[in-house]
Formats: sequence, structure tokens, C-alpha cells
Amino acid sequence: MDFMVDKPLLDRRYAAIGEKSPLFYDEPLHLVKGEGVWVYDSGGKKYLDAYNNVPHVGHCNPRVVQAVTDQLATFNSHTRYLHENLVSYVERLTSKFSDPLDMMILTCTGSEANEAALRLARNHTRAQGIIVTNCSYHGNTEAVAELGFAFMPEAKTTQRVLGFTPPCTYRMSDHDVSVEIYLQEIRQAITQFKERGIGLAGILLCPAFANEGLINSPPGFVRAAVDLVRAEGGLFIADEVQGGFGRTGKWWSHQWEDVVPDIVTLGKPMGNGYPLAGVVSSAELVNEFSEWGMYFNTFAGGPVACAAGAAVMDVIEQESLIDRAAEVGDYLAQKLRSLQGKHEIIGDVRHKGLIFAVELVTNRAEKTPATKEAGKIVNAMCREGVLISRIGTHDSVLKVRPPMVFEREHADLLIEKLDTCISEGGN
Amino acid sequence: MDFMVDKPLLDRRYAAIGEKSPLFYDEPLHLVKGEGVWVYDSGGKKYLDAYNNVPHVGHCNPRVVQAVTDQLATFNSHTRYLHENLVSYVERLTSKFSDPLDMMILTCTGSEANEAALRLARNHTRAQGIIVTNCSYHGNTEAVAELGFAFMPEAKTTQRVLGFTPPCTYRMSDHDVSVEIYLQEIRQAITQFKERGIGLAGILLCPAFANEGLINSPPGFVRAAVDLVRAEGGLFIADEVQGGFGRTGKWWSHQWEDVVPDIVTLGKPMGNGYPLAGVVSSAELVNEFSEWGMYFNTFAGGPVACAAGAAVMDVIEQESLIDRAAEVGDYLAQKLRSLQGKHEIIGDVRHKGLIFAVELVTNRAEKTPATKEAGKIVNAMCREGVLISRIGTHDSVLKVRPPMVFEREHADLLIEKLDTCISEGGN
Repeated sequence: MDFMVDKPLLDRRYAAIGEKSPLFYDEPLHLVKGEGVWVYDSGGKKYLDAYNNVPHVGHCNPRVVQAVTDQLATFNSHTRYLHENLVSYVERLTSKFSDPLDMMILTCTGSEANEAALRLARNHTRAQGIIVTNCSYHGNTEAVAELGFAFMPEAKTTQRVLGFTPPCTYRMSDHDVSVEIYLQEIRQAITQFKERGIGLAGILLCPAFANEGLINSPPGFVRAAVDLVRAEGGLFIADEVQGGFGRTGKWWSHQWEDVVPDIVTLGKPMGNGYPLAGVVSSAELVNEFSEWGMYFNTFAGGPVACAAGAAVMDVIEQESLIDRAAEVGDYLAQKLRSLQGKHEIIGDVRHKGLIFAVELVTNRAEKTPATKEAGKIVNAMCREGVLISRIGTHDSVLKVRPPMVFEREHADLLIEKLDTCISEGGN
Repeated sequence: MDFMVDKPLLDRRYAAIGEKSPLFYDEPLHLVKGEGVWVYDSGGKKYLDAYNNVPHVGHCNPRVVQAVTDQLATFNSHTRYLHENLVSYVERLTSKFSDPLDMMILTCTGSEANEAALRLARNHTRAQGIIVTNCSYHGNTEAVAELGFAFMPEAKTTQRVLGFTPPCTYRMSDHDVSVEIYLQEIRQAITQFKERGIGLAGILLCPAFANEGLINSPPGFVRAAVDLVRAEGGLFIADEVQGGFGRTGKWWSHQWEDVVPDIVTLGKPMGNGYPLAGVVSSAELVNEFSEWGMYFNTFAGGPVACAAGAAVMDVIEQESLIDRAAEVGDYLAQKLRSLQGKHEIIGDVRHKGLIFAVELVTNRAEKTPATKEAGKIVNAMCREGVLISRIGTHDSVLKVRPPMVFEREHADLLIEKLDTCISEGGN
């Protein structure tokens, strides 16, 4: 047998952190080694990692390991002392953003970045209302859980967050290709916040709509939505925790839209696994926030965190990973579209750079979500040695989001295995 | 000149993260190297670090550096795959707690740990009210900022947090040595929450009262406060972010009190600077929380974080750092009390293990806070090459909280410099 769940470890894990702490796959993997796009389980079996975006420049990237090790052995501390790493990292990172986004608040996690962004926006606007999509997820702290329309309990009861349906061109019928009916939900949310007496603080979106099934929104929609919000005094917060650092073939996924956010939040890929995240905004907004209330985050922005972040940027730039993401992304997308010609179950293929949605349907005309089939295929792919996942409101969209060092040969392997798994119905 | 502020770096920092991001000392230090209890600035000047608790087992502890490096080069990921490091670390750490505290939620920061603890307590009790001290600080996210009576803006307006005055034996006059008048504030808070219709979720305390000036509360006070809260269905959350991991001469600062918390939060020293924090509670409470809402934290509990945490525990145990903290702590406290005999300004010396409060007063009879003098002495100590800080409601309490590898010879040096700085009035 080339695969077996590590039952004793699983049982110990249940006793240590509970049975409900989420695990991937019906038969959870026990991974022990990683290198580039490859991971290995405790039995020595090798898997192509086509899912994890945190090891952005590859699992165990030697340059990042070296940078962290060197700094860890030299000095690590917090931001209450001066350090070159903090300053040069922020200078370098903010240079990748349009004006006036040139100041940062560093944090450790994407949840903390979204928390800080919300505090900043709510203080600036003296209003509370935040608009998100109705299938969003932005983190695990209370104020951020309120934004988590997908499944967070706080989202069910909060009065200060309202969701709208994000338009997906694949599912828009001819008569509603106009974005108007979607924008109308945003107008209604603004009105509701006024009626509740809490006002509008802003709109918070992942511009890649990653948790929404990586939908393609109609051209101009994001800009139009932001215009509505800004006209009422609200801010645009772009959550680039998934879409940032070149994933979509541009440095930031909001660069696909004709709009510069007021606040950008960053996370997951930023330190290649070393906990590092942050908020980018204008000097005006950051200074106003810092004057309102002291912000200090013990582990954030320390010399090691910034060394990790700088090493990730080194690799991205020196290995031209953003151009490669665009190029390999197009290659894999083309292959996926070929598979679509062969397999009726593939209703739609969407991608930007190296993030892909393969939407499965049981009926192409009706676009009926193939939820059960998607689950079977994800698990079958794992058994075949390729790690992917699924998302979307019906969990019927295959999510492919590999490390940025993913190459054409890896794309070929993924396609070969996906073809097999779909042909066999995931069995 | 043996010291000079790095003005160009300071200016660049201001442009990168703003002028209000907090810095220590009138002339901020530019530190570049650390080793054990020592740190070095960019000019090569050496400082005894008698303040930082994050480098718990010493700056750049080689064992921790090696553990992080090895794991970083082997495999790092999240908790959706099985990994031995997570399980064995949680097993080992929870073995240091009394029953029924044997399950964990791992996070990256103390703020996230307190966030998770609040969500857990509020869900369990179906109530919102949290009692804290009126000079507390527990982190930087919104729900946690509400607890920050010391200076967080959200604390000024929230309806679901109430503060009480923590009793300090040094400042209690003869007629109120009874804890009754302090407990009365807690009773009133419970009543107020009922009147507000939000109920009581619990009391959240740092059992070492670190931000409160490391006060000595009267024996039995914490237990009596918790009894009041539990009688009304509330939980006791012990914030061990500062007091944990042997700092006070016991594994956990709540072990000085006759009470087992329902929830414990951990942070700062846990990974010796690698971002690692968490919540310890009972299986009942953790499972209930996980069933209520999925909790996932991308960077938390990964193989590298747990390797860092385990290495910290290795050093604590193999170098008997908890016993040493008790022993060296008593030694330094005795020396500080000798200084008290010499310098009228030292009103009180308090300590548990290796955390010390030296309360400065301009008048011993009146116990008038020597705020200005404390500021001058902290800065003078820095110029003399010893890093300390100050706390308390009047910023008049010198705070000494060195890495746990602090020895008698370091205590002697600190005493020598403190004697000088006090003699010279901090000039």
C-alpha cells in the first residue's frame, strides 16, 4: 500500500487540538518534507503541491532559509529599536505600490492585517459599516470573523457588515450582463448602514475573488463598486492576502482593476511561511491611525521577519517569478481548457497568473454545481500525488494555486492526473 | 562620543512606518547584534538587556536557532496536514498545566490568543461582559483593544468591558487592607453587565499584574475575584503572555494563586522570538468552540513554530531556568532592597522570579509617584549600558524583566549602574 493514514498520530492530534481542527482530504496526509513544488509524506511518497501559496517561492527555499537563519543567529527583536531591515523592507515593498500607498503597519498574520485595516478605516470615517461579498472569509479574530459570510458565526449576527453577491460572468445570464443589479446590492447596503445609524466605513474585497471561486467579475465592476463607496465617504480595502506578491501575474491583484485602494492588506506568501503580514496605506491614513491609538505588535516587523520578507522579494525579482506566473499560468489554463473539451464536467476554467478555478458542473446548460464530484476528484488527485483543493459557495470549484516556482512540466503532470481522475469519476 | 542616534535611519523609519510607531528611549537605540543577555548597537556598544522577555532563553539562543533552521530547511506548513511537531509540542506543553487544561488552540501572537479566548468565553457563556483591571493592556486587535484600559481607544467606548482597581498592598492604607472594597468593584461590574442585558462572560487577568506595575495583590484576592465571577457563570481567563514559561519562578504565574483558570493565553517568550502563541483550555471548552465556528490560523502551529517552542522548553528544562529565575530573582531583589535603604526615591521593591518592579516616589510617606525621575533614570541606565523600562499608571515604576539566562553577575552590574543613575538623579 502506498498510502496509509497515520492513525496513532491522528488520534494524538485529536486529543491535543480537538477533532474539529480542520484537516485536508478524507485520508489526512502526514507530510514531513518539502522542496520547491514537492512535498513528501512520512512513507516517502512524493506529491506535487499545486495548492499551497504560503511557500510562495517554493517549499524550503534555500535563500529564505539562509536569510532567516543568518538574522536569527545575529539579532531578533521588536520595532521599538531602530533596525535597517524594517526600514529597507518597507521602502522596497511600498515601492511596488502606486501613490499614495507608501507607508506600512506590519503585523504577523493576515487576520491582524485586516483587523488593523478595519480599525484604521473605522476611525478615519467615524463610521462602522463594512461591505464584503456574501461568500467572503478574511480571518479568525472577532472583527474579521464578522466579515466571514462564508461560515463564521459572528457574521450571522453582526449589524455592521453587509454582504453583496459578487457577479460572476460565467453565471450571469444574457439579460443581466449589466453590472447594475449587483451594484444595486451595494447601494442598498449603504442605505441600510445609514438607517442603522452607523454609517459606511468602506468596502473590503479580495480583488482576485479567491474565496468566491476566483470568479471573473465583469470589466469595470470593481471600479464601479468602489466609486459608489467612495461617493459616500467610504474607503476601499483590498485584501491581497491571497492575490498579492505576483500570484496573478501582476504584483497586486488590484492592479487588474482601474482603481488604487485606500488600504491594502498582505499576508500568506509574504515571508514564505515565516509569519509576516501587514497593511499598506497612505502616510495620511497611517499617521492618523497611529495618533488615534498606539499600535504595537511584538513579533511584527522584527529583523528576522523583514529578512524573510526581503528574501522572498529577492527570489521573486531575480527569478522573474511574476512573469513566469503569467506565462506558466497561461500555459496551464490552455491545457485546462483542452481538458474542458474532453470532459463535460468542466463547466468553466478561470485563471489569473498562477491561481486557477476549474468549475465543475453536472450539467453544462444548467451549470448545476458538481459538489460531490469535486470532493471525489480532490481526494483522488491526492491519492494520485497531486495536491489541490476546492472552493466556491457550493464547494464545486477546483482550486489550483501552486507555489510560484511551478513550471510547465508540473502543469503537464497536473493535467495528466486530472484527466485520469475525471475519467475515473474520482474513484 | 560613545552614543549617537542614527538620525538618517530614524528619518527613513518615520517615512516608512510613521513617527508615532513607538520607540524606546529619548535617543532611540539602533541594535544590530544579540547574544544571551547582551545586545550591541551599530557603534559596537554593548548593553545588558534587563528588559526583553521575548528572547526568553537568551538572544540568539543557538539551540533555538538550530531547531528553527533545521525544520525550516526540512518542511514548514500549516495544521491541515498531520505533523509530529504540533502534536508532541501540545502534549508536552499541556503537561505543565493542571487538569483539565489539556487542549490547545495555537495562534501566532498574544493578541490572537486573547482574541480566541474571548470568542471561546463569549460563545460558551452566551454573554459578552468581560472584567479586566483598569490599567490593563492585552493586545492590538479590536476586541482585545477594548480590554486595554491603559490607553487603547476602543476601551473608552465599549459597553462590554468594565475595569476594576487592582489592589496593591504597597498602596493600601491600614483601613482598607481588606480586599472587600476591591471585590466590590467586581460585584458592581457584574451587576452593570446584567443591567446592560449582556451578561457576564468572565474575568481576564494577568496573574502577575505586569502592566499594572507588578503589584502584589493581597493573598487570596485573585481567588476571591474568580469565585465571584464563577458564581455568576463567568470564566477565568489567565493572560500568561508576560508571566508564563517560568518567568515568575513557577511555570505559570497563576500557580502563585490558589485557582486553576478556565482558559490560559500564552505568547511572547513561547518561541524565543519566533511568532508563536496560543490558548490552553479544557477539551470541553475547546471542542465546543471548534464546533461553533471553524478556527484556522495559517501560520500557527506549523512545524517550524512548534520546533521553536519545543527548543525553548528544552532549554528551560535542561538549564533549570525556572529554578534559576527564582534563585537569581531573589538575589537581585535583595540587592534592590539594599539600594532602597540607600536611596529615598525607591519606595517599594516587588518581584516574582525574574520580573521586578522598583517603584519610585518623591516622598515615601505620601508615596508620590516619581514619574519624571523614573523617565530620567530609564534613559540614564540606557546610556550606562543597561536596558530597563518603566510602567504603572503613573509610569513611575521601573520594570526589570531580563531574559531568563540572567545571572548573579548581571544582577550585580544592574545594581551598580542603578546606584549610579539614582545617585546622579538620572542626569
